[in-house]
Amino acid sequence: MLPEFFEPVPADKAYRLFNLGATPLVSASFEGVDGVMPATWVCPLDLVPFKTTAVIARDHFTRPLMEKSGRFALSLPTASIVEETLRLGFVSKNDDPLKLEHSGAEFFRVDGFDVPLVKGCACWAIFDIIPEAHNQQTYDLFIGTCVGAWADPRVFSNGHWNLEGTPKALRPLHYVAGGHFYATGDPVVVPGYDGE
Amino acid sequence: MLPEFFEPVPADKAYRLFNLGATPLVSASFEGVDGVMPATWVCPLDLVPFKTTAVIARDHFTRPLMEKSGRFALSLPTASIVEETLRLGFVSKNDDPLKLEHSGAEFFRVDGFDVPLVKGCACWAIFDIIPEAHNQQTYDLFIGTCVGAWADPRVFSNGHWNLEGTPKALRPLHYVAGGHFYATGDPVVVPGYDGE
Repeated sequence: MLPEFFEPVPADKAYRLFNLGATPLVSASFEGVDGVMPATWVCPLDLVPFKTTAVIARDHFTRPLMEKSGRFALSLPTASIVEETLRLGFVSKNDDPLKLEHSGAEFFRVDGFDVPLVKGCACWAIFDIIPEAHNQQTYDLFIGTCVGAWADPRVFSNGHWNLEGTPKALRPLHYVAGGHFYATGDPVVVPGYDGE
Repeated sequence: MLPEFFEPVPADKAYRLFNLGATPLVSASFEGVDGVMPATWVCPLDLVPFKTTAVIARDHFTRPLMEKSGRFALSLPTASIVEETLRLGFVSKNDDPLKLEHSGAEFFRVDGFDVPLVKGCACWAIFDIIPEAHNQQTYDLFIGTCVGAWADPRVFSNGHWNLEGTPKALRPLHYVAGGHFYATGDPVVVPGYDGE
């Protein structure tokens, strides 16, 4: 079942979901096997169509699922699921085949896309991988083209983040290291600059 | 002259400066000509040696300086210089040859590295470009290896960000679009996880 707060994001605004530089959960699925893990090194690459890069090392359970299915998803966890996010990162499904169940996170799918998304996130996007063997082999670097994006309208609507006064629980997370996150903070407004 | 708050960051901790996903200023210099511009799409690529990606479109003044010198720097502006940061982004030096002077930003250099860094930033790092013609031509994507990193010890010391209770003016910025930034917020602490 879809989350209660879940609305499509126009293709030309999807990059804004990830411009914040918050830490996503990366997920993929192949032949009925799902993988979900946090990955800090994810970054927009192009505006329209929106493309992203994602650095996924070869020892992760999720990586071959990405390579075999040619697809991955990003879900941007909020502070409300920071513990679930850490649990999805500190254990590999290579070591705990029930990692997803043990994480406490809840998953859902969107019609037409066979890849798990994560509840309690601020936004979601699904990408088709552009095969780039050199980047994948040399740098663990994947490039994907966005084929669908959605957001929680309480924090992102009409193409804009709206985090002013938002409770901490609904804010995205920025991972540093050693289990430490920062929440996205408050707007920094420059008088005279009010771009659309 | 170096900034008052400016200390070296160990090579194996430099990635943490950029894990936050904050928006850097990218700078480069060639034959006495300097370029400085904000670039949101910058992301760590490897831990040790620390590598980064940076997406720099071909119409930017700074790009040929990067290509010809083989080097670029990242400075992570704080809210204290958000106006200077916007001015460095909303005008190209192609259109205003005195863009850097008009921005109000102040610049400095570190001995041994001929590339401008920006005062009022939380941290700084200098990268040598790994030539990757396909990525540069197809995706405007550059890859660099870190050859030096420094931070303001009021916000990053002993390998850790320390933004708890930090005044907004000293916090890094996360650019979304249309002149809108968010500051890095407060820590999100998970009881029981206190990794080093």
